[in-house]
Amino acid sequence: MWIETKTEVEEASRSRAGFSRRVLDGLMLCTGDMEHLDTYIQEKWFVLQLAVWGLRGVARVILANNPLSGALILAALYWASPWQGLLGTLGVLASTLTAVIVGQDSGDVAGGLHGFNGMLVALLMGVFSSAGDWYWWLLLPVCLGSATCVFLFSGLTTLLDHWDLPAAVFPFNIIIVLYLLCTGTNNPYFPHSPVTPPGAVEPNDTALIAVEVIRGIPLGVGQIYATGALGPSLLILGAVVLYSPLLGVHAVLGSAVGTLAGLSMAVRHDSLYSGLSGFNGALGCMAVGGLFFTFSWRTHLFAIASAFLSAYSDIALSNLLGTVGLPACSWAATLIATLMLLLTGTLAAYRIPIGQVKAPERNLRSRSQWEAGNTEERESTDV
Amino acid sequence: MWIETKTEVEEASRSRAGFSRRVLDGLMLCTGDMEHLDTYIQEKWFVLQLAVWGLRGVARVILANNPLSGALILAALYWASPWQGLLGTLGVLASTLTAVIVGQDSGDVAGGLHGFNGMLVALLMGVFSSAGDWYWWLLLPVCLGSATCVFLFSGLTTLLDHWDLPAAVFPFNIIIVLYLLCTGTNNPYFPHSPVTPPGAVEPNDTALIAVEVIRGIPLGVGQIYATGALGPSLLILGAVVLYSPLLGVHAVLGSAVGTLAGLSMAVRHDSLYSGLSGFNGALGCMAVGGLFFTFSWRTHLFAIASAFLSAYSDIALSNLLGTVGLPACSWAATLIATLMLLLTGTLAAYRIPIGQVKAPERNLRSRSQWEAGNTEERESTDV
Amino acid sequence: MWIETKTEVEEASRSRAGFSRRVLDGLMLCTGDMEHLDTYIQEKWFVLQLAVWGLRGVARVILANNPLSGALILAALYWASPWQGLLGTLGVLASTLTAVIVGQDSGDVAGGLHGFNGMLVALLMGVFSSAGDWYWWLLLPVCLGSATCVFLFSGLTTLLDHWDLPAAVFPFNIIIVLYLLCTGTNNPYFPHSPVTPPGAVEPNDTALIAVEVIRGIPLGVGQIYATGALGPSLLILGAVVLYSPLLGVHAVLGSAVGTLAGLSMAVRHDSLYSGLSGFNGALGCMAVGGLFFTFSWRTHLFAIASAFLSAYSDIALSNLLGTVGLPACSWAATLIATLMLLLTGTLAAYRIPIGQVKAPERNLRSRSQWEAGNTEERESTDV
Repeated sequence: MWIETKTEVEEASRSRAGFSRRVLDGLMLCTGDMEHLDTYIQEKWFVLQLAVWGLRGVARVILANNPLSGALILAALYWASPWQGLLGTLGVLASTLTAVIVGQDSGDVAGGLHGFNGMLVALLMGVFSSAGDWYWWLLLPVCLGSATCVFLFSGLTTLLDHWDLPAAVFPFNIIIVLYLLCTGTNNPYFPHSPVTPPGAVEPNDTALIAVEVIRGIPLGVGQIYATGALGPSLLILGAVVLYSPLLGVHAVLGSAVGTLAGLSMAVRHDSLYSGLSGFNGALGCMAVGGLFFTFSWRTHLFAIASAFLSAYSDIALSNLLGTVGLPACSWAATLIATLMLLLTGTLAAYRIPIGQVKAPERNLRSRSQWEAGNTEERESTDV
Repeated sequence: MWIETKTEVEEASRSRAGFSRRVLDGLMLCTGDMEHLDTYIQEKWFVLQLAVWGLRGVARVILANNPLSGALILAALYWASPWQGLLGTLGVLASTLTAVIVGQDSGDVAGGLHGFNGMLVALLMGVFSSAGDWYWWLLLPVCLGSATCVFLFSGLTTLLDHWDLPAAVFPFNIIIVLYLLCTGTNNPYFPHSPVTPPGAVEPNDTALIAVEVIRGIPLGVGQIYATGALGPSLLILGAVVLYSPLLGVHAVLGSAVGTLAGLSMAVRHDSLYSGLSGFNGALGCMAVGGLFFTFSWRTHLFAIASAFLSAYSDIALSNLLGTVGLPACSWAATLIATLMLLLTGTLAAYRIPIGQVKAPERNLRSRSQWEAGNTEERESTDV
Repeated sequence: MWIETKTEVEEASRSRAGFSRRVLDGLMLCTGDMEHLDTYIQEKWFVLQLAVWGLRGVARVILANNPLSGALILAALYWASPWQGLLGTLGVLASTLTAVIVGQDSGDVAGGLHGFNGMLVALLMGVFSSAGDWYWWLLLPVCLGSATCVFLFSGLTTLLDHWDLPAAVFPFNIIIVLYLLCTGTNNPYFPHSPVTPPGAVEPNDTALIAVEVIRGIPLGVGQIYATGALGPSLLILGAVVLYSPLLGVHAVLGSAVGTLAGLSMAVRHDSLYSGLSGFNGALGCMAVGGLFFTFSWRTHLFAIASAFLSAYSDIALSNLLGTVGLPACSWAATLIATLMLLLTGTLAAYRIPIGQVKAPERNLRSRSQWEAGNTEERESTDV
């Protein structure tokens, strides 16, 4: 496939429009899964390899698998808060290194599959900590929590493999809930503030500001990395578009759906403004719309349904866990995406086996080629 | 099998007792699974088909699979409360139609497997709503909740299929808990009152009235459809007896066992009087006694054990979920029935594969035929 | 294997050091799994068989499978509290007999697999009861609860068999939580006091006493049987050492790790002093260090990791369940041990299939023999 594209490009470069074509081609090399990079770094230093694996892990949080996207996202995190950026970096490195040490499959490690859960654990530990930034003792639970993700990821993968399901961000969700439960609110070493559920009654009922609500939609994309600033959120969205424009569209769409669901359930205004209502919808929408299923108008409708289900489940779970002061994190989106992968009927026909999931555009091309091949074959058999 | 019965009847009709025989025969056609109806309606209008599928779905709630039973039960619900009847009808139609749209297996749809969860969600949303009857906005969550059941049913079926387990009413139980959590008690659009757990202390300790407790036993059967009136409850019981007298006996027995369990744990009087203590016992008893297992005195003892376990688990789960104002619905009976299906040893020998489950009387006949066939075969091999 | 040992001993007895050798040999017969006993009692009275099965069940609680260890442990329990000893005996008998009645696999029953959950349920019901010792009505739930364990054990085994996982003490953990929820705190028949979570704030902040903390380490081994006295705890530890010294070492190590974890999270002093912080660590450490995995320095490190994870998860779950007044029992250790069994990578290479698990020393010998056999075979193939 790739060789063909190259020869096409070579021909094009002979023509007058060669230069712009070459730029576009260079850009094309930076999008999608960037598998050519893996062969390039194969025999390089371990530190370089680790960096690429880590950056893939950073991008995997938002379902992208592209080290450049990862670098952009990491930059966005450092922009939003250097302390959070440091924690994220430490988390992704701690869990990736642990995976190497406990002998996990090298393909999984290289694909960043052991990094994203650790990164999320680290980021969320930082966000919920009430000890302020640069509280160095926090690095201890961050490293331990991130390392533990590898154990859970490996165990859950074995468990879920029977149904060809991914472990996804289940490890992160389990570890962060256990950590917050373990420390409690009054812990002398690692204090954290309890979470207000979205269904909590607000003291003074003010009118909803439409602009703030709309601003919450791109913030919903940023909240996947627990950042609530507009600039970094847009940069993260840009990183997703770099990996796959289709995924970027679904991220915004899902966040909008989540905000809509929040409005229909009259959640706290703060929850809408900060993008917390949107991020589960965004994740649910991205998983179904193009990533685990070939894109089509049918899959698109299912993606919207998935976004609604994720958003409503998130409100429900947030209210439930909020009674004991816990956040619902991305439990809702993870559970709904898992449910969607288990569905039979129309949607199942579009499902891509977990081992073959690539960027949505690539999935689409593989399928059409495969279908074209099928048709050809059938024709040749007819003759 | 059926053809033989027909010829027998034809012969009988020649005799003097022909008329009463023919009446009995007509009645026989209306009992059991009524599979002959499926071939009859196969090429009729879609609306007629949908009605039969829906009525099967209505009856499936109480483990029966007979459209006439479904019609009787629906009549009972409209008798108890026209608004609840309307919600139930809407729920069963919404989820059956959704199943058709998302391309679920047509055999499952025709068997009413996609209707009963949707119906229960609709009924319970109506019961827990504190906005009063004829609050039309409620139709929105009713339709969405019922439709969502199809997703959960399909997904859970794939998950549980590894152990040949049915998805049963897990989807309903999940959806109703999520709905109640999502709206919370102070929701401005869809308010509902919190549930009092059965273990709550009563303000003034009055003596237990024996007649009321006994009255609670048939009410336990009605509570499966969330109705607390005696007349409709008896009509529902009649509908079960029409499908299978054996199932009807187990329903009453299970409800009595549940009431006994409630007495032994000193639950609130109200819980006993209203039949809420009995309905999980009834469901647990019905599932084991004849439906998923061939009837015998051993199965019967296991059915009683299942009723006790369901009833006690229900008290436990109600107390647990009651701390956050949630009802335990039929979680207990569903979990215990699933456990019973997983058992090894004596009970496993009586288990009927999920795909071959029919009315208890039919299961019994299939087994004795099969065993007779086995004996015959063995004899012929001996010669 | 065993026959060889016998001939060796016979030869030795001819030599001068014959006597002490014979004593040692007799002692050797009492350690490990004592499989020779099974053939010995095979045709004896049922009561004797039941006693051996029961004693194996008693020892299984602490992952040992040796009737003499069981007898020692039972003696320790009667020493600590005759009432608790009686409850334990009743529990193990009730569940073993139920398993015989409902037709469970006779090999499982003879191995004591149906006894240990019942025993734990009985012991914990006694501990949490606030009605005082010798409250005879308690025998009713003790018998019923223990009997129910058989159903859960059988069902969960079928469920977990797909991943070659043991049902372990999941049945006990489920039943005790359901029982406590079912009765509630104000139950007129079976009252019990709510549990204080380890993270609860203490009224007056006193300094930690180091000696008491160290005393908590052996107590952690006793807490597996819910006993908090030093003498009986040491006797229980002795019983473990009789079965397998390696397992005994890991029990103490795990308890120490658990205490360390408790210190790092600043749990209540009482939790440290009583050994409650240690027992989940002990169980988690024993399961990985030698029992389900062949012992090696790598397994040893994983065992320590498992102890830490179990201890921290226990604090988290205790804080969570403590909000509704429930204890976390051994949920943490059971879940973490299950997770360890699911791991891929380095640890998986040491895993012993559940059906072939023996005493750690025996596992080690089987493996080295098997590896030696493999090398020999390879060599002979080379020639």
